[in-house]
Amino acid sequence: MSSYWNQFAQKLDPYVPGEQPKDKKYVKLNTNENPYPPSPKVLTAISEAVNDQLRLYPDPTCDALRQKIANHFELDPDQVFVGNGSDEVLAFSFMTFFEAEKPVAFADITYSFYKVYANLCSLNPKIIALNDDFTIPTDAFCSANGGVVIPNPNAPTGRGLPIEAIKKILNANKDQVVIVDEAYIDFGGTSVVPLINEYPNLLVVRTLSKYSSLAGIRVGFALGQKDLIRGLNTVKNSFNSYTIDRLALAGACAAIEDDAYYRDQAQKIIVTREKTTKRLQALGFSVIPSQSNFIFASHSDVNAEVIFHALRDQGVLVRYFKQPRIDNYMRITIGTDAEMDKLVEALNEILDN
Amino acid sequence: MSSYWNQFAQKLDPYVPGEQPKDKKYVKLNTNENPYPPSPKVLTAISEAVNDQLRLYPDPTCDALRQKIANHFELDPDQVFVGNGSDEVLAFSFMTFFEAEKPVAFADITYSFYKVYANLCSLNPKIIALNDDFTIPTDAFCSANGGVVIPNPNAPTGRGLPIEAIKKILNANKDQVVIVDEAYIDFGGTSVVPLINEYPNLLVVRTLSKYSSLAGIRVGFALGQKDLIRGLNTVKNSFNSYTIDRLALAGACAAIEDDAYYRDQAQKIIVTREKTTKRLQALGFSVIPSQSNFIFASHSDVNAEVIFHALRDQGVLVRYFKQPRIDNYMRITIGTDAEMDKLVEALNEILDN
Repeated sequence: MSSYWNQFAQKLDPYVPGEQPKDKKYVKLNTNENPYPPSPKVLTAISEAVNDQLRLYPDPTCDALRQKIANHFELDPDQVFVGNGSDEVLAFSFMTFFEAEKPVAFADITYSFYKVYANLCSLNPKIIALNDDFTIPTDAFCSANGGVVIPNPNAPTGRGLPIEAIKKILNANKDQVVIVDEAYIDFGGTSVVPLINEYPNLLVVRTLSKYSSLAGIRVGFALGQKDLIRGLNTVKNSFNSYTIDRLALAGACAAIEDDAYYRDQAQKIIVTREKTTKRLQALGFSVIPSQSNFIFASHSDVNAEVIFHALRDQGVLVRYFKQPRIDNYMRITIGTDAEMDKLVEALNEILDN
Repeated sequence: MSSYWNQFAQKLDPYVPGEQPKDKKYVKLNTNENPYPPSPKVLTAISEAVNDQLRLYPDPTCDALRQKIANHFELDPDQVFVGNGSDEVLAFSFMTFFEAEKPVAFADITYSFYKVYANLCSLNPKIIALNDDFTIPTDAFCSANGGVVIPNPNAPTGRGLPIEAIKKILNANKDQVVIVDEAYIDFGGTSVVPLINEYPNLLVVRTLSKYSSLAGIRVGFALGQKDLIRGLNTVKNSFNSYTIDRLALAGACAAIEDDAYYRDQAQKIIVTREKTTKRLQALGFSVIPSQSNFIFASHSDVNAEVIFHALRDQGVLVRYFKQPRIDNYMRITIGTDAEMDKLVEALNEILDN
């Protein structure tokens, strides 16, 4: 570590994303990407934006995109904040709403970037242990604290939350912001976006990386009452005025408009998920019920880490987290049917069936 | 202001970018964009990347782009950090290298985002007054402090710094990071990149927005010794893993490779700048000698704010900063020769020549 880094940089513990391998072609089921291509209308819209205008700055306030998102969710454009992927939106949200001295509640088993943001913002996180079946102990999120971050569905478990549980948490935290991270909501969960006008403390975060098959263009957004959105803009504009480029803006606008295409793809993923769940169960896996585009599975006899490495050797990448309580689980992204056939084939061989 | 914003967000004073008007077509000389289109090879490379792979995350470590930048500058890829525009790179740099309690030195008349970053990072900025002719008082940057940020050429003045002055500042600040912001270096300045291997405290920040005609795709980078780059990566990966999208990566790689194209465009801009300077002088303006793609001009008889508004009414946008010492100046981006004709024509009318 260098003497040039400040105290802040020296205490950070950065996030480690799932690997993006370059050595060979894998069946890539490790970073929850959508196996289906973006809408053809998205590709057309982006292609049309590849022109001499790229010499000009993009719209720093993303007006057209915010208008389209607002229309889609029946909100006002002032209730929409757009960022460079939902990770950036989450980083700005932590920076805007959570106080250094107050504890912010999130689960022990959840998206591991929350812990990194807590560190980034010098928070004192209040880590809440999930129940044994990985359901969320709603009451534990209801005692006074400095804010709540809760993904619905949760990752890496895939478990969804009933809207009544989130309402209870919102009601118990009226003075703090409750971030509901809906990165995976479109694969079977129930969104709390309709609660936004009722709850000034609710911020919903979304991404175009999963449902919209656009991990490659980096667009996420937050929905909430105007006051929260203004706060996010204040922090963002103290950091970087132009976070979304012209091509991403063009693609994101087209994606929001072509929801029909994406609904169909999501439905296919849900069907494959349910089929894969049954096939894994037949191989001796227990699988947490999932409302997302991945499943979280553990085998009765063979250790998850062993299976993870054996799958990798066979050219199938899944995600393994070496951390307490989940070190015998693998998170498996739902791919195409053909990709899941390869997964099951590899598992058959590994498990010697 | 909301009770939901934390103390940090409440004290911020965000940057206000130059306007990106949507109401009508202007001769746009207000945000220092390059008047010439990106290299045709850049547009081809981006077009080829508009495909189904957009469903996948980009390379979070930008290996291919860092390699190309490293080759271009005769550095190692570990000496290159890539960010979402040089504004993001600067934000991360402030977050990584400058301590809250120590004063960071920058000029009173300079890129106004530095003050915003200082606020973002709770620094105590040491504001150094430029000399009357807007040259930099080198010695004032040489007294012990918590770091230095110095643009070469400076904005909005356009004045370049001799390499010996920067060496003196580097030598006087061996224990602190000296950021040299070379956003405009390719329009006639002398880069300090060749000093990187000699000075562990030197970080050079660059952008593809100006010289490379790619303000629309948001790519900037920093060059420095490995230790500084590792620090930037630590902060970046505590904030957002995937800051550069697949399309921007493709375009940036092609831009770095087609330097011959861009050198020619820059040369045209330099010729237009010198010609425009003479024309403005003939109209009664004093013009600060510029090494960048803009000029900073003041009229002997008519107030700059008056001219700024009158130009706007005539469809010509320039930048005006209502702040002490420069409130009688306009910053005028160098456009094409035809655009500068329109500027001079409008000025002729306004000044009643």
